[in-house]
Amino acid sequence: MWVFEEIVEGRKLTEIINTEHENVKYLKGIKLPHNVVAVADIVEACAGANILVFVIPHQFLGGLCEKIRPVVAPDCVGVSLIKGVHFDDTGMVLISELISKEMGGMDISVLMGANLANEVAAGDFSESTIGYNIQAHGKLLQTIFNDPRFQVSIVNDVPGVEVCGAVKNVVALGAGFIDGMGGGDNSKAAIIRIGLMEMKKFIKTHYPKVQDSTFFESCGVADLIVTCYGGRNRKCAEVHARAPLSHPSPEPPPCFASLCSCAFDLTRVN
Amino acid sequence: MWVFEEIVEGRKLTEIINTEHENVKYLKGIKLPHNVVAVADIVEACAGANILVFVIPHQFLGGLCEKIRPVVAPDCVGVSLIKGVHFDDTGMVLISELISKEMGGMDISVLMGANLANEVAAGDFSESTIGYNIQAHGKLLQTIFNDPRFQVSIVNDVPGVEVCGAVKNVVALGAGFIDGMGGGDNSKAAIIRIGLMEMKKFIKTHYPKVQDSTFFESCGVADLIVTCYGGRNRKCAEVHARAPLSHPSPEPPPCFASLCSCAFDLTRVN
Repeated sequence: MWVFEEIVEGRKLTEIINTEHENVKYLKGIKLPHNVVAVADIVEACAGANILVFVIPHQFLGGLCEKIRPVVAPDCVGVSLIKGVHFDDTGMVLISELISKEMGGMDISVLMGANLANEVAAGDFSESTIGYNIQAHGKLLQTIFNDPRFQVSIVNDVPGVEVCGAVKNVVALGAGFIDGMGGGDNSKAAIIRIGLMEMKKFIKTHYPKVQDSTFFESCGVADLIVTCYGGRNRKCAEVHARAPLSHPSPEPPPCFASLCSCAFDLTRVN
Repeated sequence: MWVFEEIVEGRKLTEIINTEHENVKYLKGIKLPHNVVAVADIVEACAGANILVFVIPHQFLGGLCEKIRPVVAPDCVGVSLIKGVHFDDTGMVLISELISKEMGGMDISVLMGANLANEVAAGDFSESTIGYNIQAHGKLLQTIFNDPRFQVSIVNDVPGVEVCGAVKNVVALGAGFIDGMGGGDNSKAAIIRIGLMEMKKFIKTHYPKVQDSTFFESCGVADLIVTCYGGRNRKCAEVHARAPLSHPSPEPPPCFASLCSCAFDLTRVN
């Protein structure tokens, strides 16, 4: 496992992980299996790899892929857990497409779903969806990730699975505004349902081959529910609705940065 | 509006409704429009009716339909808001089919959705779905029920809409057990999603023509969400999971009757 090296309380994070088997900075309180070894050098971590799991902020992809590409096994495949969409001059680009391009055409599947990390780490029952381009790769990844407490289904629909994970947070803002305005259960369920329909319409406009059934998977309705009842974006919208910004405001309320970031995503999506 | 006559604090309920414009027993605190008139005699209430809205416990239907049938207008249509399913020797029978039969073949639509009554009465934004057999009747009923704060969609799928409203409470029990066992957001979203899939499978087994799109309507995913986050059955299951019955139990815990009733429904459904 590649880990971006940081100094935590005077020690290297990789060293802490490899001796205490705990990522004390990003997943405190959870013991990692001893066969998970933290490596600070990305070339060393990926040398000869047959499968790569991408879980990093997407803006760092370019620089890293350049280093990884020459050292992985020739038959290497990848799976992206990165949530978001990228934009270039031609319009929307999937993160999985971006990785594939940076990795010289490597086949990239995606894994999304109602899988809040701390709950998965605690062993709570969770589900996820893998979207694949090549069935054999989907099945291989399912074998690796699937567990009695982490049920993974596979669907031949990378854009459907991936864009659900990206746009659900827009709906969560709506759900948070409803909460902040004191709306009832009916109104919130309506917002979630209408939001799901809009996600479907938006995704099918950009990717007409996306299947309706994908929205019934964990990456669709389940991830949306988790995000609209828990989730940071919902919370930020709720706080904002309860205490809207005055203009000019002496100082931004908590979560303002998150709202701005989501609003920025919205302008890019539209 | 037919009202089953009761004496409330020494006065007739119909008299209270018609003078104070409030159903002080069943919808306290909500003023009714003055053109809603309570009538204790069902024959008088339904004489010459063109549209009937059925909202009563389904076990009383037989006796009442017998009285109504001879007095309604010849072109009368109906819509049922009754949640449940009936069983006879041939198996499952829709309540709407039961009403239709009792009313001599009258066309009966259904209205279901994420529409908790007290929130609708308070004017909170809500949605509902009308399932129709005859499009003109669906459109007529939509015109009557639709409002900026009560959005009604119509679908040509009576069994899909109606059975969603009946079986969602089984899923809500699962959601309540998860809550009572201290499960996380991932687990609850998984139960709701898997429950939705099982509702779909169950309904399509009995009614193969039911459309997938019906489950995206308010009667499907939205009503399920409301019932799995609010709702009496969810609450009862949560209470039961926190303090299970001992055998023999000195006294049943709160909500035991509701759990038994739902369990009874389950045995009939299976």
